[in-house]
Amino acid sequence: MKIIIYTTGGTIDKVYFDQKSEYQVGDPQANGVLERANVVLDYVVESIMKKDSLDFTDEDRELIRRKVESSSFERIVITHGTDTMIATAKVLKGISDKTIVMTGSMYPAQFRDSDAVFNIGCAVTAAQTLGPGVYIAMNGCIFMPDHARKNVEKNRFEEQTDNKAG
Amino acid sequence: MKIIIYTTGGTIDKVYFDQKSEYQVGDPQANGVLERANVVLDYVVESIMKKDSLDFTDEDRELIRRKVESSSFERIVITHGTDTMIATAKVLKGISDKTIVMTGSMYPAQFRDSDAVFNIGCAVTAAQTLGPGVYIAMNGCIFMPDHARKNVEKNRFEEQTDNKAG
Amino acid sequence: MKIIIYTTGGTIDKVYFDQKSEYQVGDPQANGVLERANVVLDYVVESIMKKDSLDFTDEDRELIRRKVESSSFERIVITHGTDTMIATAKVLKGISDKTIVMTGSMYPAQFRDSDAVFNIGCAVTAAQTLGPGVYIAMNGCIFMPDHARKNVEKNRFEEQTDNKAG
Amino acid sequence: MKIIIYTTGGTIDKVYFDQKSEYQVGDPQANGVLERANVVLDYVVESIMKKDSLDFTDEDRELIRRKVESSSFERIVITHGTDTMIATAKVLKGISDKTIVMTGSMYPAQFRDSDAVFNIGCAVTAAQTLGPGVYIAMNGCIFMPDHARKNVEKNRFEEQTDNKAG
Repeated sequence: MKIIIYTTGGTIDKVYFDQKSEYQVGDPQANGVLERANVVLDYVVESIMKKDSLDFTDEDRELIRRKVESSSFERIVITHGTDTMIATAKVLKGISDKTIVMTGSMYPAQFRDSDAVFNIGCAVTAAQTLGPGVYIAMNGCIFMPDHARKNVEKNRFEEQTDNKAG
Repeated sequence: MKIIIYTTGGTIDKVYFDQKSEYQVGDPQANGVLERANVVLDYVVESIMKKDSLDFTDEDRELIRRKVESSSFERIVITHGTDTMIATAKVLKGISDKTIVMTGSMYPAQFRDSDAVFNIGCAVTAAQTLGPGVYIAMNGCIFMPDHARKNVEKNRFEEQTDNKAG
Repeated sequence: MKIIIYTTGGTIDKVYFDQKSEYQVGDPQANGVLERANVVLDYVVESIMKKDSLDFTDEDRELIRRKVESSSFERIVITHGTDTMIATAKVLKGISDKTIVMTGSMYPAQFRDSDAVFNIGCAVTAAQTLGPGVYIAMNGCIFMPDHARKNVEKNRFEEQTDNKAG
Repeated sequence: MKIIIYTTGGTIDKVYFDQKSEYQVGDPQANGVLERANVVLDYVVESIMKKDSLDFTDEDRELIRRKVESSSFERIVITHGTDTMIATAKVLKGISDKTIVMTGSMYPAQFRDSDAVFNIGCAVTAAQTLGPGVYIAMNGCIFMPDHARKNVEKNRFEEQTDNKAG
């Protein structure tokens, strides 16, 4: 089964530059994660942008949507910053015949206890097993964009249960 | 969604005892993996046995089958040694109304570059997204027991494509 | 042998807050490093401040000097940001009867490939084996403050060989 | 300062072979440790043998002694299994004009929480700062061969304080 992993930046790809005493979005970490996992999966990694998701504009989201819509792949993972992942997921709704799974991480992939490896494992699996639609694979669960929220205090995604959902 | 993770030993749970200069199956590593991933999943980890899968007897496999059959959970992950994972998977075929996903790892979970975290991410996702049946989640793919083989040289699971399958 | 580890912040203690999409100086990492190394050393860790060393003022350096001078310990390690470690080392010169070893790291201790564990190993050893004086233990070497420089491009400390030293 | 690191095997270099469900002494891990630490140290790594130290014979120790005696380096680190490190250290006593520091680890270097990186940091520092003699750098301390013991229960080296020392 062929899947493509589009990377857009976010915490998962943040690396540290001692030189500038700061964190910046670096190269996609998904490659290294999938190599170390020694996957037999037929996959491609393509970087669309390298941004903190708080800085995403409407144009950025439209660019991602166009990329996904015009992609020759039917099974797609998108790595994305966690802060506005849900907003981008909503923009991707309604694309037909494609399984789109968004993921990211709360800690940079280069951290020893990062959730990145686990989350990418979840996302590539969901992309292979779920039918067409847009999903968020975070914290061990699959969320629908209209029923997910980021709980900032607990530093995790949760089911959105109140009436405001949708 | 509630899932149970039955652990049976294997490389994934191997720890090192300098004292005896040897590796032994230790406590289930799945707990630590799921805690570090900060999952919101409703899960339980239960140890059935702690054995190298090369040492599994027919009785061991029957015990695992009885455990799974009588389980109140419908979504089940089983961590297992890689050498005879496929054999155990075949013994579990035919259990109705349960999604059973087997996984393990080529390197102990305590290794810095272990595939254990990735594989457990894949397995808990598959257990939530797939319908009833027995599956193997290894190396980023979902295999059916009758069409999987362990490629010992390449140290990975692959699709079994020849006629001998089944 | 008793040693004290004074922590002052810097990259070594930087942790990541996804919530704020930023890195901040957190609690001292030296404790965890020494625990995992299972040291039999008789040591104490004490936090003096939690700052990026680029933000250090003359007052901060005077505070560190007073702390060291008045310490009851003769063997002292100081963890410090790398950008102004040499400046602080120079301020500490001339304290009699104390072995003072400064260290830090180019990557936060929580990174999987951080140099923090190695550098702390070097520093606690130098603090036990060297005579009174001020030293910098970085990149596997022991530097004298007047003959050290941080090579920003190569992201490492080096011997300062030109005439401007001192 | 130039140092040589002779490797002889032991837990520090143990890697895991899923294929054989066992641990074996593999290639020297010191290279990777020193590369990741980005050392500016002028060093060479040379493998003398690849054995579990419990399997060392008198001939093996004589070979190590000859290697060290005839070495053109004056500052020498030897990585060695922990079980008989002290015995080998005693065989190396009396070599003049060389600083010889033995180290190893309780957990293989490839483990995420291994003590290998810390111990190698300690050993290369001790090799640069101490005068001629034979030392053991383990668990954050420098031991003299006649006054060290491995505490098997606590899984660490300690000072040998009773009269039997020597």
